Amino acid sequence: MADRARPPSVAGKVMAILDAFATGAGRPNLSEICRRAGLPLATGHRLVGELVAGGFLERVPDGTYRIGTRLWRIGSQAPAVTGLRELALPHMEDLYEATHDNVQLAVLRDGRALFVERLRGTRSVPVLTQVGAALPLHATGAGKVLLAFAPEPVRERIIEEGLARHSARTITDPDELRRSLERVRRTGHAVTRDEMTLGAASVAVPVHDADGAVAAALSLVARSRSADVRRLLPPLTTAARALSRDVAAHWRGGPSAQRNAGA
Amino acid sequence: MADRARPPSVAGKVMAILDAFATGAGRPNLSEICRRAGLPLATGHRLVGELVAGGFLERVPDGTYRIGTRLWRIGSQAPAVTGLRELALPHMEDLYEATHDNVQLAVLRDGRALFVERLRGTRSVPVLTQVGAALPLHATGAGKVLLAFAPEPVRERIIEEGLARHSARTITDPDELRRSLERVRRTGHAVTRDEMTLGAASVAVPVHDADGAVAAALSLVARSRSADVRRLLPPLTTAARALSRDVAAHWRGGPSAQRNAGA
Repeated sequence: MADRARPPSVAGKVMAILDAFATGAGRPNLSEICRRAGLPLATGHRLVGELVAGGFLERVPDGTYRIGTRLWRIGSQAPAVTGLRELALPHMEDLYEATHDNVQLAVLRDGRALFVERLRGTRSVPVLTQVGAALPLHATGAGKVLLAFAPEPVRERIIEEGLARHSARTITDPDELRRSLERVRRTGHAVTRDEMTLGAASVAVPVHDADGAVAAALSLVARSRSADVRRLLPPLTTAARALSRDVAAHWRGGPSAQRNAGA
Repeated sequence: MADRARPPSVAGKVMAILDAFATGAGRPNLSEICRRAGLPLATGHRLVGELVAGGFLERVPDGTYRIGTRLWRIGSQAPAVTGLRELALPHMEDLYEATHDNVQLAVLRDGRALFVERLRGTRSVPVLTQVGAALPLHATGAGKVLLAFAPEPVRERIIEEGLARHSARTITDPDELRRSLERVRRTGHAVTRDEMTLGAASVAVPVHDADGAVAAALSLVARSRSADVRRLLPPLTTAARALSRDVAAHWRGGPSAQRNAGA
């Protein structure tokens, strides 16, 4: 964010503090925030205090901090995400009603699958995904779709950076993943079983924008024991095509334009 | 946010700039951002540039700015909102499936009904509500529930501040609203017809936390011509009770604790 050669500006420090909350990993106390943000304790103390006073952060009685509702509300106005969400929601509802599985929508961001919406019901299998979560591309169905259709240099860079193991079934061999992604491009859908979460299987397909580029991935996550791709794929494909038409007609300036830069 | 007697700090200026996007009203250019934030153009130009470089804001080719996906992601980690959303989602799905109307969840924030989740389908009536929208308490079903069960000083302050007209049917007379809220407390539900949006009717009920306080309002919004309260109320009440049990069992430190301060 800031040039390494010179100290970050105050705005840079404020962003570094807020970035310390981006992963959602635990609820940090002041020293943990300063460690993540790379700030001296005195500076962090002053700025965190200002952010609490402004409602951007909230102090919990146990001395930890969390993102405040005010910042949530500002963030919820991000049109690249919310525009896509608004278009997708009716189609995702239709899909949920047809399957009762987890219905997820992800975009490619910073080399990960950023989940911008997720529906689930009382009967859906528990999954790691939450709205705002950024999961690895090579271990999730939605991620494999985004990776398979990413420009080749982006795809190769992500593969070369290393494929972390998330379960015993994660594909960690680059060539095996390349073959798997080639299959995704050929068939138009990705399937994962137990590759991110044991017990969960996913099927994912691309959502296209007006230029035919892949703007997002729509996926269903079901129990891997009972997941039947032949049953899940027809409603998933139907919903993704309906959403693609809406995206092509109504959506401008979303992640598609920023995808290559951000990936 | 900042003491009027002294100039705001840089962190205060950064928050003022981001706050300029909170309402979601249009996509401001630089001078509009500076006007809303109360900053000189040179200062605003520098800070906006830093926020764009950090991915907190995005510059659109036409010279306007919008909230960036990075800030959306940080905001999406706000536990006061997302914890409630995660608990509510399965119950809201059940309710959507039973009614196919708009299903909405709101909390009381800064004297308005802040909508933290909303489901809708292809058959639902179009409404103003979006996730992150803050609508007037006196003109929405969810808002009337939140206002009816708010502490009396909070309720009276909001009524005294004036009841803006949003449609020909909005209740703008304080005494008429007080009687309407008394009815909400007696019956346990609120009904509005065409009071915010012509053509839309809503039914809303409270969601209770472990202390029996009203933590949120759950509502259905349907076409006012066909909305049948006797049909909508049973599934709505059932879902709100199921959600209240989950909130009582699993939810700590949500808006309930901050409600009085924030309202």
